[in-house]
Amino acid sequence: MRLDAECYPCMMAQAFRAARLSGLETGALERTMRSTASILGGVDPSLSPPEAAVLFYEHIKEVSGVEDPFLHLKRESNHKALELLPRLRAEVDSHPDALFYALRAAVAGNIIDFGAQAEPGDLEENLGSVLNTEPFVDHSALLRRDLQKASRALLICDNAGEIAADRLLCEVILREFPLLDLTVAVRGGPAINDALLEDAEAVGLDEVCKVITTGLAMAGVKVASCSPLFRDHFHTADLILAKGQGNFETLEGRDEHIFLLFQVKCACVSDYLGAAKGQAVIWSRRAG
Amino acid sequence: MRLDAECYPCMMAQAFRAARLSGLETGALERTMRSTASILGGVDPSLSPPEAAVLFYEHIKEVSGVEDPFLHLKRESNHKALELLPRLRAEVDSHPDALFYALRAAVAGNIIDFGAQAEPGDLEENLGSVLNTEPFVDHSALLRRDLQKASRALLICDNAGEIAADRLLCEVILREFPLLDLTVAVRGGPAINDALLEDAEAVGLDEVCKVITTGLAMAGVKVASCSPLFRDHFHTADLILAKGQGNFETLEGRDEHIFLLFQVKCACVSDYLGAAKGQAVIWSRRAG
Repeated sequence: MRLDAECYPCMMAQAFRAARLSGLETGALERTMRSTASILGGVDPSLSPPEAAVLFYEHIKEVSGVEDPFLHLKRESNHKALELLPRLRAEVDSHPDALFYALRAAVAGNIIDFGAQAEPGDLEENLGSVLNTEPFVDHSALLRRDLQKASRALLICDNAGEIAADRLLCEVILREFPLLDLTVAVRGGPAINDALLEDAEAVGLDEVCKVITTGLAMAGVKVASCSPLFRDHFHTADLILAKGQGNFETLEGRDEHIFLLFQVKCACVSDYLGAAKGQAVIWSRRAG
Repeated sequence: MRLDAECYPCMMAQAFRAARLSGLETGALERTMRSTASILGGVDPSLSPPEAAVLFYEHIKEVSGVEDPFLHLKRESNHKALELLPRLRAEVDSHPDALFYALRAAVAGNIIDFGAQAEPGDLEENLGSVLNTEPFVDHSALLRRDLQKASRALLICDNAGEIAADRLLCEVILREFPLLDLTVAVRGGPAINDALLEDAEAVGLDEVCKVITTGLAMAGVKVASCSPLFRDHFHTADLILAKGQGNFETLEGRDEHIFLLFQVKCACVSDYLGAAKGQAVIWSRRAG
């Protein structure tokens, strides 16, 4: 998915939040917004939103010297989600369809996003609505069938905090499909509040399955630029699960067997899909 | 008031709304957002927000060929406000302090703004809260005293629709101070949904007092660039009333005896004043 007109105000708003979170103030903050505008003025419009975002997030990093402005918020999100995990796990265990519940919980976790939203949503509050509302698209029957047939699968995570719900999903998948070789990928470097190795470890995801990184500090996956290890997993997986809008925006056009799980958070993706903001999506191109 | 860091995302959002309202779609819309980003990247940061906004509003006008994208919305706002006017007038007439009521109604009308807000507020809904809430600053006692002493006064309007409430204010001022030479100024050309001569006539303001224009298609007043007629009125007025944030942003630092009447609509002005968003302001620098 390439840049949309409406991405520009959103990117400027993201830049403002990141720059302020990086400690820039008044004069430096204004200058950084102006240079961000220049960067966006010269952006290649065929880039996907996460690719374009790298340009100004890197710029803000250079100007401020702050490598990971969302570090504190990510840790807070992990902490909060971890507190919720035992209850989620109990719900999953008592649910007649554990995979159904775990998938919905993983989509609900996608609300913990500091990118497209000024304020991240609350997983607990969001969970009820995601569990009780029919997703805009729900290809989970196909997902279930294909998990049965798959030997190797790859889950590409999105945000910190959300990754605790991803852990639960991995637990359930491995319980139901114990022969599956499941690998989880997080970002290779700071990208908004996206989960890194540290976050995977914080929620104990590394105790459940192998965790690798994309090799990129980008809130999405540009496969050709990813690490050889990631590309190997990506290309040999029978099935890929990818969480969040950033992964949707960078992967939706690809031919691999990818299931995209996210909540619609902006007008662009909403218009692109015809879904309403807030709607859950469990979508595979192959199902269409 | 010069550009603030937070003006940039707001200006991009304004540009998007104006470009879309001007009929630009997909490719042209994306290109226009990109060129707007370039314009903002090269903007002189000492400009006030309304001065900076002229740069991209003019650009969108050139690209789209649409002179006044808010024309329809302005007419709709006038129509709606005019329907409310008889009731407002009855309230004023039955109120123990007509000037108090008319001033508050005029500030409440300032909610009809398509610039800083994605959606304009509703005058009727807003009126109750403005009448019942103490303004953040209220220099109306000084205003009343100085109206008594003034020979010539100038009211600089802000938005269409709102201008119906301004008419009521003019009626009350002229009833209470019948010897006052009161002139009203509207914008000299399209600037967001700001009132033009057509709007002043639509609400019959020209039947109440003399109406002139600033000579500028700008959502604020850059005095040195205004028409000689406007400048003459501006410099010879004993007292100036100026409505709205755009007038505040361009006039707040000046030495003339100006009362600024508006509702705080954005984080920049909110931070600048220490007022909360939505709070009413009836402020004169001289009162401090």
